[in-house]
Amino acid sequence: MQIEDNITAVLYRAGDLRLEKRPISEPKDDEVLLKICVVGICGSDLHLVNDGRIGPKIVDKPAVLGHEVSGIVWKVGNNVLNLKKGDRVAVDPGVHCFRCDPCRSGRGNLCVNAVFAGTLQSDGCLSRYFAHSADFCYRLPDHVSLEEGALVELVSVAIHACKQGRVGHGSVVLVQGAGPVGLMSLLVSKALGASKVLVTDYIQARLDKAKEIGADFIVQVHPRDSADVVKQKVISALVGDPTTSIDCVGSELTITVAVRATASGGVAVIVGFHGLPAVNIPITEAVIREIDIRGNHHYNNYDYHEALEMVATGTIDVKPLITHHYKIDEVQKAFNTATTREDNAIKVLIHTD
Amino acid sequence: MQIEDNITAVLYRAGDLRLEKRPISEPKDDEVLLKICVVGICGSDLHLVNDGRIGPKIVDKPAVLGHEVSGIVWKVGNNVLNLKKGDRVAVDPGVHCFRCDPCRSGRGNLCVNAVFAGTLQSDGCLSRYFAHSADFCYRLPDHVSLEEGALVELVSVAIHACKQGRVGHGSVVLVQGAGPVGLMSLLVSKALGASKVLVTDYIQARLDKAKEIGADFIVQVHPRDSADVVKQKVISALVGDPTTSIDCVGSELTITVAVRATASGGVAVIVGFHGLPAVNIPITEAVIREIDIRGNHHYNNYDYHEALEMVATGTIDVKPLITHHYKIDEVQKAFNTATTREDNAIKVLIHTD
Amino acid sequence: MQIEDNITAVLYRAGDLRLEKRPISEPKDDEVLLKICVVGICGSDLHLVNDGRIGPKIVDKPAVLGHEVSGIVWKVGNNVLNLKKGDRVAVDPGVHCFRCDPCRSGRGNLCVNAVFAGTLQSDGCLSRYFAHSADFCYRLPDHVSLEEGALVELVSVAIHACKQGRVGHGSVVLVQGAGPVGLMSLLVSKALGASKVLVTDYIQARLDKAKEIGADFIVQVHPRDSADVVKQKVISALVGDPTTSIDCVGSELTITVAVRATASGGVAVIVGFHGLPAVNIPITEAVIREIDIRGNHHYNNYDYHEALEMVATGTIDVKPLITHHYKIDEVQKAFNTATTREDNAIKVLIHTD
Amino acid sequence: MQIEDNITAVLYRAGDLRLEKRPISEPKDDEVLLKICVVGICGSDLHLVNDGRIGPKIVDKPAVLGHEVSGIVWKVGNNVLNLKKGDRVAVDPGVHCFRCDPCRSGRGNLCVNAVFAGTLQSDGCLSRYFAHSADFCYRLPDHVSLEEGALVELVSVAIHACKQGRVGHGSVVLVQGAGPVGLMSLLVSKALGASKVLVTDYIQARLDKAKEIGADFIVQVHPRDSADVVKQKVISALVGDPTTSIDCVGSELTITVAVRATASGGVAVIVGFHGLPAVNIPITEAVIREIDIRGNHHYNNYDYHEALEMVATGTIDVKPLITHHYKIDEVQKAFNTATTREDNAIKVLIHTD
Repeated sequence: MQIEDNITAVLYRAGDLRLEKRPISEPKDDEVLLKICVVGICGSDLHLVNDGRIGPKIVDKPAVLGHEVSGIVWKVGNNVLNLKKGDRVAVDPGVHCFRCDPCRSGRGNLCVNAVFAGTLQSDGCLSRYFAHSADFCYRLPDHVSLEEGALVELVSVAIHACKQGRVGHGSVVLVQGAGPVGLMSLLVSKALGASKVLVTDYIQARLDKAKEIGADFIVQVHPRDSADVVKQKVISALVGDPTTSIDCVGSELTITVAVRATASGGVAVIVGFHGLPAVNIPITEAVIREIDIRGNHHYNNYDYHEALEMVATGTIDVKPLITHHYKIDEVQKAFNTATTREDNAIKVLIHTD
Repeated sequence: MQIEDNITAVLYRAGDLRLEKRPISEPKDDEVLLKICVVGICGSDLHLVNDGRIGPKIVDKPAVLGHEVSGIVWKVGNNVLNLKKGDRVAVDPGVHCFRCDPCRSGRGNLCVNAVFAGTLQSDGCLSRYFAHSADFCYRLPDHVSLEEGALVELVSVAIHACKQGRVGHGSVVLVQGAGPVGLMSLLVSKALGASKVLVTDYIQARLDKAKEIGADFIVQVHPRDSADVVKQKVISALVGDPTTSIDCVGSELTITVAVRATASGGVAVIVGFHGLPAVNIPITEAVIREIDIRGNHHYNNYDYHEALEMVATGTIDVKPLITHHYKIDEVQKAFNTATTREDNAIKVLIHTD
Repeated sequence: MQIEDNITAVLYRAGDLRLEKRPISEPKDDEVLLKICVVGICGSDLHLVNDGRIGPKIVDKPAVLGHEVSGIVWKVGNNVLNLKKGDRVAVDPGVHCFRCDPCRSGRGNLCVNAVFAGTLQSDGCLSRYFAHSADFCYRLPDHVSLEEGALVELVSVAIHACKQGRVGHGSVVLVQGAGPVGLMSLLVSKALGASKVLVTDYIQARLDKAKEIGADFIVQVHPRDSADVVKQKVISALVGDPTTSIDCVGSELTITVAVRATASGGVAVIVGFHGLPAVNIPITEAVIREIDIRGNHHYNNYDYHEALEMVATGTIDVKPLITHHYKIDEVQKAFNTATTREDNAIKVLIHTD
Repeated sequence: MQIEDNITAVLYRAGDLRLEKRPISEPKDDEVLLKICVVGICGSDLHLVNDGRIGPKIVDKPAVLGHEVSGIVWKVGNNVLNLKKGDRVAVDPGVHCFRCDPCRSGRGNLCVNAVFAGTLQSDGCLSRYFAHSADFCYRLPDHVSLEEGALVELVSVAIHACKQGRVGHGSVVLVQGAGPVGLMSLLVSKALGASKVLVTDYIQARLDKAKEIGADFIVQVHPRDSADVVKQKVISALVGDPTTSIDCVGSELTITVAVRATASGGVAVIVGFHGLPAVNIPITEAVIREIDIRGNHHYNNYDYHEALEMVATGTIDVKPLITHHYKIDEVQKAFNTATTREDNAIKVLIHTD
């Protein structure tokens, strides 16, 4: 196979996404050069492409997105022992230092030296070639496809959210939002033994998908529903209250619902957020009923390891979330589909090879 | 000793506290009748006496307050085995059922059938005699005074807050508010091995007390300080950021400080609250840096057990917090002192015997 | 329905099991009188019936066995609110006090006042009628059969064992012994997300059953295999080492295998035991590799609750473990079948109604 | 200061310890060259010097011991950012890889690629110069002496043991063995909030030292005491049973005592061991009463960090454990003193500068 052009999708500013040919990096001693194969579009990518920002992060110079990735090892750095040319890998884009205090105590997601590819901090993988730390590339078993490999990052997020939420056997879980993160949180919750999972969304088609992949209950909410109304719908459907809420929307409404609907002593995990500086939270209720409000920042390195295993062992099937495929030269179309959610789009994949 | 009148302080409405003679109860089979000796005034009592309410709880019929209590066993119910007449006891006012789901899983503070004496739900101990579940009265060792016994409840609150905050060896703790709860949280944090505790307050005299009883750092804040200013003062003093914040004030400002100043991956425990329905919280920061926001509702029964042990073994010395003593017929004066904090009042005790 | 004779199976000494008519108890205020329906035979029952003892417990006076039980509420004590006549229930035979230190901290299985029915300490349920604490009877949903109800106790044991072993998503579990406890531990491990479970036994038929109900690997061991040989077989089959071992045999050999085969930092849970006073353990290896050696004593009350839910939600299917049914007047035959394991007996049930 | 000879104590075989001049290493990119200052003698060093082995480890080629170490940074590798020439440091001798599964999940003490200096695996620090990974050298605050710095490793072991034993506020701890590890476990247990610590030993002088540094109880045991006798002495002294036992002896007797004396649901941590292949353990009792038997292998990297902080903040005072000082050319005499424990030797330090 011949080295092709390293076509790369570069975001210049909101709405301005260009295809460019970029030079191919040489892998450093601890890196591998990957031929990128599949890149998923994440909700945070949509914010950056459409709004030119997400929360405090602003697109102020040309940036390459792409952090849900699989590829093939093309070249191996001098010190790399764990991979060889031709290995198919899933990519953990969040390289951490292993040495800071959070890393040493097992919370690499809070690494003070972390470099997370594709989130403005450093360039991502929406290109044909990409050099990455070999410690953060995971060999895929033969029976796991590259499409599935590109979804391992998303599974990791859901695993970390479920852990933050202490989801385990017997948990009753409320998932707000039936987009990719919400649906994956549903799959992982069930895999971890949750006895009931209820999913809410505005869009019936997304709820139908949730039902199809295993939701015990689905509840359609309406834009004008108050937190109280949503809470009542949830509790009526469950005939009880959830022990954990996973908020994959991150609005003031959903956070309020999470606090108010969750059983006393439970956890409200906030995964989605719009970069709101502050939201109003029913704090007295949270205090009196000891509802833990916990954020979710990416995932730890070993969550990624577990995520791959969950996929590899067939514990969860991520394929039903994949709805659309595009070539890299259709990147703008891919982002359009993901943004409009047309044709019931859930997870949109870009094939860069 | 002759049975005296059961003089009782009854709260009719905000500002209307009356002394009445009430009949003396007979203890039920599982109860003991206590001759009450010492009752501490709690901040929540002040809200009820001064405002006629705290959060959703409203004084809508005559109520007896008093839940920081010690006494002497006067009469023993038929089935009581653990106590005998004459035993000096500390009183856990929060009777829970042992049988509901929270109780069975060790979270009795969230018991769905809990009856907490002296908080409007049922009458408290500001009286000469009081019948209480024998399971919730703890014999005091001879060397522990009845004054100290009355403070065990407050120690329990601080222990539970420290547990919610995962305070342990090496923790760096920010305590906001140098009132009784804050000062006790300081004492307990140090006892649990916190390496540094910093206490903030508006009032210098309270900070001096904090310093006197072991604060590593004190920081005076001013009513006009923004959250950013307070955060900077805290971090400058600590030369670093706290791993746990214990907010004993419960205002929007202090909660914001707690979220913003706490180290990534840390915990912000909210103990104090004014019954605010909702407050604005910097949620994006809390999510990205995985700051857990955890409330504190009373304490568990075994926290009370630990609290008594902490006092009995001399691990902590609660006596410096006791600043004022009144007889029960001076109850109004006692509440005035506690309200105005005149004469550097911290913990005000009422002697009912 | 007319009150019938309370036919009861009484064990006088090893091998001497007699059917007697006994008076029917009146339920105390907190009790219900149950019409017993199904009683499972447990391995510990076999020790008592065949050997007249298990470990330190000796049959020194007539005793009624039977602690894997379901029944129907026949009469309700004065203070009972949670049940009514006609309710079908699963029975938790281990009544604890809720008030001792272990109970208050959520470890009721170590209650210092525990009374466990059917284990010599107090009479069990191998009879037509039995009065039991209403707090320890759990209503069965309509779709759960009384046969399944009688197996909830066994599920609880497996749940507690898995918790002691920190079994969760991604765990690799070695289960030694494919009798009822081992097979149930297999089912629960898979339900809790174990990625691989390997079961060992001498008997191929039992291994076939393990395979049938979901074992990822089965390994037949031979009576003359050394611990090293068994360890090698296990590690070869898994292509790796288990993170948790659940020893449902309890011999020196199996405990040694558990310590030697488990991955560093893992847990060896010992569920089965023959009442051996002491066994030789490879302690240096356990220390250096930090293998936790943890026993398993019954289960906690909330494990029972979870067990019932696991059955009720269909998370696990216990029916394949049920191989034989007898009437109470065939009790001797039932014990013979369970002892000889003839006809591939796994769980033998006695129908007392 | 001029570079001196790199005098090194080399162990050739049991009893054959020679002083040699060895070349001074150049630090690699990630290393610092240390001028070693203080080296403590550990019990495992004594086994190696006196017996030529410990457990499976045999002195089969010339080896340099020494892993309780402090020194001064002499030269800095190219990539080192955290240290500079002249820094006084405590040395964590256990270099792990950060990348294997145990490392990534926060259990670096079980690192599959660990290199632990001075334990035959690689040469230790009983020399004037030593090159070591900069990530594993910790700068000492000015007020912490190099003698104290050399004891941080030992504090780390005690911290890890206390964590394995879940020692915290209110714990009642039995420490068997009043040697350096036992005494340090006493200090750390108290620092972590243990309410009572009882220390046992054969030697009254060691027990006196334990009492002097804070043991609540000391119990002298006699070589002929059975486990039952020791258990009774312990329980009589405590008027209760310990919730955690830390066995710093590691004999069959002490392990048996640990299992039998510890309260139900408690933990028996085994720190000391003689490399016995196997010991007889009262397993039935351990299982029925759910006594966790947990080993202790070195400590994690963050335990070392905490240990330094414990010393630096004055939470524990390690100086009373230091009884003897020798120059490196008196190394044989130093080992003799540590072996015979003459003159009440506890911790013997060798000054190599």
